[in-house]
Amino acid sequence: MAHRVGRYTVVLDKKPIIISSAAAVGTKEGDGPMAQYFDYISDDDLMESKSWEQAESLFQRTAVQIALKKARIAANELDGIFAGDLLNQCIGSTFGLIGFEIPFTGLYGACSTMALSLITAATAIDSGAMRKAVAVTSSHFCSAERQFRFPLDYGGVRPPTSQWTVTGSGAAILSASGSGPRIESYTIGRAVDYGIADANNMGAAMAPAAADTISRFFSDTGTAPSDYDYIVTGDLGAVGSRLLGELLSSDGIDIGGVHRDCGVMMFDPSRQDVHAGGSGCGCSASIFCSYFMQRLREGSINNMLFCATGALMSLTSSQQGKNIPGICHLLHIKG
Amino acid sequence: MAHRVGRYTVVLDKKPIIISSAAAVGTKEGDGPMAQYFDYISDDDLMESKSWEQAESLFQRTAVQIALKKARIAANELDGIFAGDLLNQCIGSTFGLIGFEIPFTGLYGACSTMALSLITAATAIDSGAMRKAVAVTSSHFCSAERQFRFPLDYGGVRPPTSQWTVTGSGAAILSASGSGPRIESYTIGRAVDYGIADANNMGAAMAPAAADTISRFFSDTGTAPSDYDYIVTGDLGAVGSRLLGELLSSDGIDIGGVHRDCGVMMFDPSRQDVHAGGSGCGCSASIFCSYFMQRLREGSINNMLFCATGALMSLTSSQQGKNIPGICHLLHIKG
Repeated sequence: MAHRVGRYTVVLDKKPIIISSAAAVGTKEGDGPMAQYFDYISDDDLMESKSWEQAESLFQRTAVQIALKKARIAANELDGIFAGDLLNQCIGSTFGLIGFEIPFTGLYGACSTMALSLITAATAIDSGAMRKAVAVTSSHFCSAERQFRFPLDYGGVRPPTSQWTVTGSGAAILSASGSGPRIESYTIGRAVDYGIADANNMGAAMAPAAADTISRFFSDTGTAPSDYDYIVTGDLGAVGSRLLGELLSSDGIDIGGVHRDCGVMMFDPSRQDVHAGGSGCGCSASIFCSYFMQRLREGSINNMLFCATGALMSLTSSQQGKNIPGICHLLHIKG
Repeated sequence: MAHRVGRYTVVLDKKPIIISSAAAVGTKEGDGPMAQYFDYISDDDLMESKSWEQAESLFQRTAVQIALKKARIAANELDGIFAGDLLNQCIGSTFGLIGFEIPFTGLYGACSTMALSLITAATAIDSGAMRKAVAVTSSHFCSAERQFRFPLDYGGVRPPTSQWTVTGSGAAILSASGSGPRIESYTIGRAVDYGIADANNMGAAMAPAAADTISRFFSDTGTAPSDYDYIVTGDLGAVGSRLLGELLSSDGIDIGGVHRDCGVMMFDPSRQDVHAGGSGCGCSASIFCSYFMQRLREGSINNMLFCATGALMSLTSSQQGKNIPGICHLLHIKG
């Protein structure tokens, strides 16, 4: 049986094992500093399909296929898929995964979805409901830009606080048995509204949610940043990362030494023009499922917090003048 | 520990209890045959707000508030919210539930979301991860029409196979202890594509998914339709219900005597012009959380299957000529 510590944190009983993972990304990501860790880099962001949406689906399918191959299991050995993406009605996941014919739990956590899918899959495995399951998410720069902002052809100028939606997908296979990093505990996030309404400043909208979840986790578990090798946020970018540091400092928590942000890690700002960094479900998913999983497996990271962040907005809510609430889901993972 | 029977079905260990539920609906639903069972009927589909989207959020909030009141618990006694809706990026749930400040798991199963949220919440409770949680979904005729089809002012003529999106929400509070109907087992659906591409014939898109899940459940459990008082589908409507009967018949399964469909039950076709019936997340959610929960509680139903159905499409996928895959998630509930 899982049990709760403090008000918000769940300690798992069986510590579900991430037996395999894979990341499939697009051209710009494959040209960045993380390139050597990715399993698949496409030289065609359309993935030889007819639409950006279909391409996004193919990145998800590719990530799952590679993760299955690495785990040496067949798709029908999975008891469930836990997936979501940023597209309206999550069609990236539906059309990417339908061919596997596996029971499908659709999730929505905006860019935090990789952490939410890992948490939900881990709970299913911990409860005995499933033996093996895959958690997967994706995003695509081109499908996201035209859905949330402007048609690409419009050529709108992006402000310095804007982030670049990552083209790619990450997939992780969880199992009740086997070898690999283990999910120790998790804290599900609350939606947090700090009054940010600028869709070109997602980092500022998400940082308060990350601070909320991380500080609740420390409070629940009685631990501190120094107890972890890394505290990894999803896609706060340069602006949001600075804000997170300031918000936690005011609570007496200093994560400066161990904080990394996947949005900052994804691109090289000296030669890749992405303003405040990467974003999207595919950002934290592809970096967690490649770089961090590799370091956990080889033992150079033993103990980390994976805190994927999301901005809970739609074009409709933004056009209606609503704020952008943030959310952050956290997992404690041991190598 | 939960355990699996057959390939797809999960039998829960603790049998989480639905200690309370509530349904809040709009004017047309409140004028229909189910009126006496609803907890709240608004005489203003805008809920005194400025937009249909905000109104949908308020239906969700109202349903949760009434369910909490009926259970005599405070919001902060809930360990989690499991919610989703049909709006782009699920903003109905985000903005409706943010005020509760409870850890939030966003789900997407199109109109099947009530079953998915009950399943996911039940798994969390069965695993020990949560003690009490609420499952809630909503839909709104006006927010759905303008997002998926035409602006209301356009006055498009609807074909006979079209369904009427229900304005309303249903919420159910699950608990590890207390009294009420119990969730015995569940079968998570697979996305099923039978080649339907007509967004005005959702029933036909969803019926094959319902047949897939229901026949897998019977096969896994070795039971038959006669073992249940009712087999309740979400929103197949008149057209989809007939198709489901035919599809299952060809597998040698006759559900005719015990089948009910929330989409058919919601409106009175002799005086309410809804063509093939009701649809939307709010359809199965509001009828399950009112009529069926009341009958389970009073003992006139002891044993039922709740099989909410969904059509996994977006405006983008339809415009790109993609088919509409269906999905159906099933729960076995005892009174």
